[in-house]
Amino acid sequence: MYEYSHGGNAAFESVKAVIDLSANINPLGLPEGVRDAIIREIPQCALYPDSFSSKLREKIAEFEHVDAEWIYCGNGASDIIFRLPRAVQAKKVMITAPTFSDYERSARSFGSEVFRYTLYPASGFILDNGFVETVRIKAPGLVYVCNPNNPTGRLTEAGLIQELLNYCGQIGALVAVDECFLDFSEQADNYTSKMFLGRYSNLIIIKAFTKMFGLPGIRLGYALCSDKTLIDSLYFHGPDWPVSNLAQTAGIAAMENAGGFIRQSVNYVSAERAVLEKELTRLGYKVFESKVNYVFFQNPYPFDLYDELDKKGIRIRACGNYYGLDGSYYRIAVSTKENNARLLDAVKIESRFME
Amino acid sequence: MYEYSHGGNAAFESVKAVIDLSANINPLGLPEGVRDAIIREIPQCALYPDSFSSKLREKIAEFEHVDAEWIYCGNGASDIIFRLPRAVQAKKVMITAPTFSDYERSARSFGSEVFRYTLYPASGFILDNGFVETVRIKAPGLVYVCNPNNPTGRLTEAGLIQELLNYCGQIGALVAVDECFLDFSEQADNYTSKMFLGRYSNLIIIKAFTKMFGLPGIRLGYALCSDKTLIDSLYFHGPDWPVSNLAQTAGIAAMENAGGFIRQSVNYVSAERAVLEKELTRLGYKVFESKVNYVFFQNPYPFDLYDELDKKGIRIRACGNYYGLDGSYYRIAVSTKENNARLLDAVKIESRFME
Repeated sequence: MYEYSHGGNAAFESVKAVIDLSANINPLGLPEGVRDAIIREIPQCALYPDSFSSKLREKIAEFEHVDAEWIYCGNGASDIIFRLPRAVQAKKVMITAPTFSDYERSARSFGSEVFRYTLYPASGFILDNGFVETVRIKAPGLVYVCNPNNPTGRLTEAGLIQELLNYCGQIGALVAVDECFLDFSEQADNYTSKMFLGRYSNLIIIKAFTKMFGLPGIRLGYALCSDKTLIDSLYFHGPDWPVSNLAQTAGIAAMENAGGFIRQSVNYVSAERAVLEKELTRLGYKVFESKVNYVFFQNPYPFDLYDELDKKGIRIRACGNYYGLDGSYYRIAVSTKENNARLLDAVKIESRFME
Repeated sequence: MYEYSHGGNAAFESVKAVIDLSANINPLGLPEGVRDAIIREIPQCALYPDSFSSKLREKIAEFEHVDAEWIYCGNGASDIIFRLPRAVQAKKVMITAPTFSDYERSARSFGSEVFRYTLYPASGFILDNGFVETVRIKAPGLVYVCNPNNPTGRLTEAGLIQELLNYCGQIGALVAVDECFLDFSEQADNYTSKMFLGRYSNLIIIKAFTKMFGLPGIRLGYALCSDKTLIDSLYFHGPDWPVSNLAQTAGIAAMENAGGFIRQSVNYVSAERAVLEKELTRLGYKVFESKVNYVFFQNPYPFDLYDELDKKGIRIRACGNYYGLDGSYYRIAVSTKENNARLLDAVKIESRFME
C-alpha cells in the first residue's frame, strides 16, 4: 500500500495561517532570474524537451567543476534514486537507519533485498566504520550514504567514504552519495565526495535544485558520475523526457549566480540554525548538532510536539515513520527569521510548564 | 546502449528554418489560458507539488466523465508506461510490431520477456483476432494496444478489445490501451475503451496532454483505471512527485475549455490530413489511411525521402527503427496549413522526376 511519507505534503496548504517547517526548502526563496526565465520559455512547451538537458548540463558542469558528460539530469533527485537500482541491477541494497525513505522504496520497487545499518543516538547518529564492515559481510550491489544524513543532519567523513569506495570497487558495487543538502554546510568543500569522482567510477553523487534553489515544485535533480556506461543506463531505465522545458530553463537561470546565492543562503541559514539549536537546547530538547538547513532533536517531554504545534498552525516533521527512530524525534527546517521566531515562541509555551 | 528513438528531437532546434513534422503535436498550439496559469503558478514552485495531483484529477474526471479516484497523473505518458510492468509485475509483455517503442523498453527495464505480434502491410497494419489467439498462447501479464497505433494511425475495434479484456481477465493480465492520439479522431467516441472501465478492472487507458494540448515540453500524462490497487501500485513504483506544480496548473487550464478546443482541433486536422493523404497518394506514395493527426505511408521510389526533405529543412519521422517496418516507411505530423503546403511542395519536387 502506497502512503505519502515525506514532509511538505501539499494537502496541508488548504489550512490557513500555516508555517510549514516539515520540508527543508531554502528560506530565501527562488533565485533571481528564475521567474523571468520560466515566462520566456512557455512558448517552447509546444516542443519536446531535450532528453539530455544539454544546455543545463553545461551550466551545472561549470558550477560543479566537472565534465558535462559526467552529469545526468532527472525529474527530481527521486527520479534518479528510482532509476539507480535498475541501472546497476542491484540484488542487494545497503542503507542506514534512519535515512531518506526513497532509497528503500526504490530498491523494493526493483525487487532488491534491503539491509539497514542502524545508527544510534548514543553515538550521535554518526556513521562509523561498522558500516564498511557490514558492507563487507552483506556484499550489496548498491550502497547509499546520505551526506549529511536526512533527517539527522550529521555529516560523514570523506575518509570513511573513500574506504567504502575502495571496498565496493573490489566487489563491483556502486556507492551513491546523496549530497542534496550538503551545499547548505559551511564545510561543504571538506565533506563533498566530488574529489573522488575521477578516481572512482563506482561513485555517483546525487544533488537537487529542490532544496538550495527553493524549487521543489519544478522537479529537478542531477547526478555526477564518471562512469558513462552507468549514465547511459540511467537514461535507459526510465522515461525519455524526464526534465520539462520549464525545469531545464529554471535550472539554467538558477545557475547564473549560484555561487553568490549559495554563500548568502549559507550565511543566513547558519545564523538562524544556531539560534534554533541554542534555544531548543535551553528548553530541554536534545539537539543533534546539524550542519545544514534543518535541525534534528529529541523531545524529552511527555507530549507530542507535532500535535501541539499543529494546533497552532505550525507543521514540523515527526520522525516516527523513519526506520531506526521513534515518535520522540523531530526535524524542523531552518526557515525565515520570522518563522523561526514564531516556532520558538510556540515551543516555549508548550515547554514552559515542564520547566 | 541507450539511444534516443523518437521524433521531436530537441537537438534539431539548432538548425535554421526548420519544419519539424517528426513529432505529432497539435498545430493549433497551446490552449488559451495555459500561459497565464503557468505565470500565476511560478511562486508556488517553492512548495512541493501535490503528489496526487488532486485538483487536476478533478478536472480530468469532469472531462473524461470518470471518477477522480480512477485517475493517475504522471510525468508524461511515458512515466506511466515505465511504472506499469513493475506495478503488475509482468514477467511477460505482449505488444504489436510496429508500435510505440517505450512499451518494449519499459518492459525490458523491468526484466520482462517481450512478445511481438507482427502487423502486415497486406492487411493495412490492422490488428486482428490473431492477436487474441497469440495472447492465449503466450499468457502475458501485460498487453498493450495502441489505439490508434503509432506510427500507423490505424484504429482497433472496440469488440476486439473487449475480447482481449475477457480473456485477459481470466488469466489475470492487464490490458493497457494507449489512447494518446484518439481524441484527434472524429470517431473517438466509437473507438475509446472508456465504456469498459467500470466493467473491467484489468483495463488501463493511457492518455496525455502532450499531443492534443500541444504541451510536450511540460510533461503531463494520465491513466484511467477502475482498479484502485493498481493505481496505488503506480504511485509506489516511481518518484513521489511525478508532476510539477507548473504541469498540474497547465493541465487544469487546458481542461477549462477542452471540449471546444478538441472540436476545433479535430476539424482543422481532419481537413488538413485529407489534403495530405490525397496529394501523397496522387504522387505515388502508398498511404495507410489514418484517422488522427499524422499520416503514415510507404515510399515506392528509390530515394530516401527523409534525407531529401532534411536537406530542405523539413524533418519527418523515418520509421526504419520500428520493429516490423523498414526504411521505406514514414510518418508525418499533420501540421499547420502552411507547413503542410511546404511539405507537399518539397515532396512534389522530389517525386516529379519519378513520374
